[in-house]
Amino acid sequence: MMNLAIFGFGTVGSGVWEIITNNPEHLKNKTAQSLNVKYILDIREFPDHPAASIITKKADDIFNDTDVNIIVETIGGTGIAYELSKRALLSKRHVVTSNKELVAAHGPELFDIANRNKVCYLYEACVGGGIPIIKSMKESLEANKIESIEGILNGTTNYILGQMFSNKISFADALKAAQKNGYAEANPAADIEGYDSVRKLAILSSLAFNKFIDYRKIPTEGIQNITLDNLEKAFESGAKIKLIATSKMQGDKLIASVRPTLINESHPLYNVEDVNNAIVLNCNNVGQVMFYGPGAGKLPTASAVVGDIVDIAKTMIA
Amino acid sequence: MMNLAIFGFGTVGSGVWEIITNNPEHLKNKTAQSLNVKYILDIREFPDHPAASIITKKADDIFNDTDVNIIVETIGGTGIAYELSKRALLSKRHVVTSNKELVAAHGPELFDIANRNKVCYLYEACVGGGIPIIKSMKESLEANKIESIEGILNGTTNYILGQMFSNKISFADALKAAQKNGYAEANPAADIEGYDSVRKLAILSSLAFNKFIDYRKIPTEGIQNITLDNLEKAFESGAKIKLIATSKMQGDKLIASVRPTLINESHPLYNVEDVNNAIVLNCNNVGQVMFYGPGAGKLPTASAVVGDIVDIAKTMIA
Repeated sequence: MMNLAIFGFGTVGSGVWEIITNNPEHLKNKTAQSLNVKYILDIREFPDHPAASIITKKADDIFNDTDVNIIVETIGGTGIAYELSKRALLSKRHVVTSNKELVAAHGPELFDIANRNKVCYLYEACVGGGIPIIKSMKESLEANKIESIEGILNGTTNYILGQMFSNKISFADALKAAQKNGYAEANPAADIEGYDSVRKLAILSSLAFNKFIDYRKIPTEGIQNITLDNLEKAFESGAKIKLIATSKMQGDKLIASVRPTLINESHPLYNVEDVNNAIVLNCNNVGQVMFYGPGAGKLPTASAVVGDIVDIAKTMIA
Repeated sequence: MMNLAIFGFGTVGSGVWEIITNNPEHLKNKTAQSLNVKYILDIREFPDHPAASIITKKADDIFNDTDVNIIVETIGGTGIAYELSKRALLSKRHVVTSNKELVAAHGPELFDIANRNKVCYLYEACVGGGIPIIKSMKESLEANKIESIEGILNGTTNYILGQMFSNKISFADALKAAQKNGYAEANPAADIEGYDSVRKLAILSSLAFNKFIDYRKIPTEGIQNITLDNLEKAFESGAKIKLIATSKMQGDKLIASVRPTLINESHPLYNVEDVNNAIVLNCNNVGQVMFYGPGAGKLPTASAVVGDIVDIAKTMIA
């Protein structure tokens, strides 16, 4: 039996609990052992939740329990999540995360601590929600040099642009609709100003080009100044405006940006609608491949986290 | 150092040799050891090829060399390829294959021999050329039950249908163009009658639904009776005709087929053109994900083979 602790019981964390709790036989077939969520760490109270008995505010209790092999970090941000991830890796626990802010800001340090302690720090859920892009880049495409990356990495902005055009509404009204439908936060800056996209682009680029790319150095422009008129003019010319993240190496220099971009109808990203994400990789041997799917949401993102957990569990003795 | 032998020096086999020979440093970084093609087995002569000195007709020489750990089978078909694959697995060599006919026909037996001999039998290159679909299904999406599969699995037929429509030509003329451009065989039956697609569908379905699906039991219809008029009528109604392979389980029963199908412009497969392939998976947690890329060709397919080789090499002691 493999014991886990989930740190942070928000949308993604509770999705991870749900998938593990609802699919015990399916997961046991994959890993040859049972997965057991032994603790959930959160500062909030969840008295009526079926998992209430395992929810705790005391991280020490979890770290002192040597039966816990895997920590799932779905707290988000770079504060307490950073401290707890470091502590988990230093105590030789595998860590699986959906925290793109943390990986974008402190990835190299955390990967290094993981390596030195011979444990994994896996982050499939950080980019593209449920799309298996990280593992495909890390493992399946290793016969290739990745030459460039182009993607729609933020579902909220893609949804807003789609709503503006199809319902003929302003940016402000589409943002309100996105907030009403739970696709945008009350403070939507990270999404609409492109900061979420650029963190994900930096994570993909670091992996593709095998060096740390600091997201703060990538020129970033959001969709807040896009008007319905812009979208309609684009459409008349056979194109859509999408928030596109791109990067490539030119010699030793990284050329990267996040900005609203005209996409023609023959382009593989043209048909990416709603909150979906897609990533196009141009590779030296395979050519152009694209990965497409839901870029956010409770179960898609949690599914990527559980995929990483299963990967670890498969290689560990029960 | 990891020594390999390539069985069959046709398009894919020579592509594998080329990638390994041209990217030694890149691959060494991935596997922490050198990959060395020690033998190439083929009944033909290649006197002017740079690899001429390692090409042999004698399989025994290769099997007797205990330094050879990995056999790459790119012979194709179910005759000698079957015998040699079995022999390789029984002699505890890992086998990496691009031979979809063999995996579709004898997969369960060969997987079983591989398991019993504690070696791998990997087949990423059998479906979708360079698209990392098999590994994604096997490993990344394991938190999911795959509910249905829908795909364009044959590049030749997709190219022919595209050529017919865009150049306003008949099926016969488009087939001739495909043959002229090297996209269709002199005997194109396996492609245009849907047999190539149905083998790949059976391989994907066997993996998704965790039971052997016999491709011979799947209703299969090719594109040979599609007319330009059909395509134009479809277009007037906002759709394209594509050769679509689909499968899903309904209780214990598999519902599967390969047949020309109307695809609306909002469908993720609508924009798949030329010799590209794409596979849509509908999954219980992640929802709909799509994988897209070149479905055939020397380097894309060889890239998938080398990806499997790297996977094996990474876990073997040098």
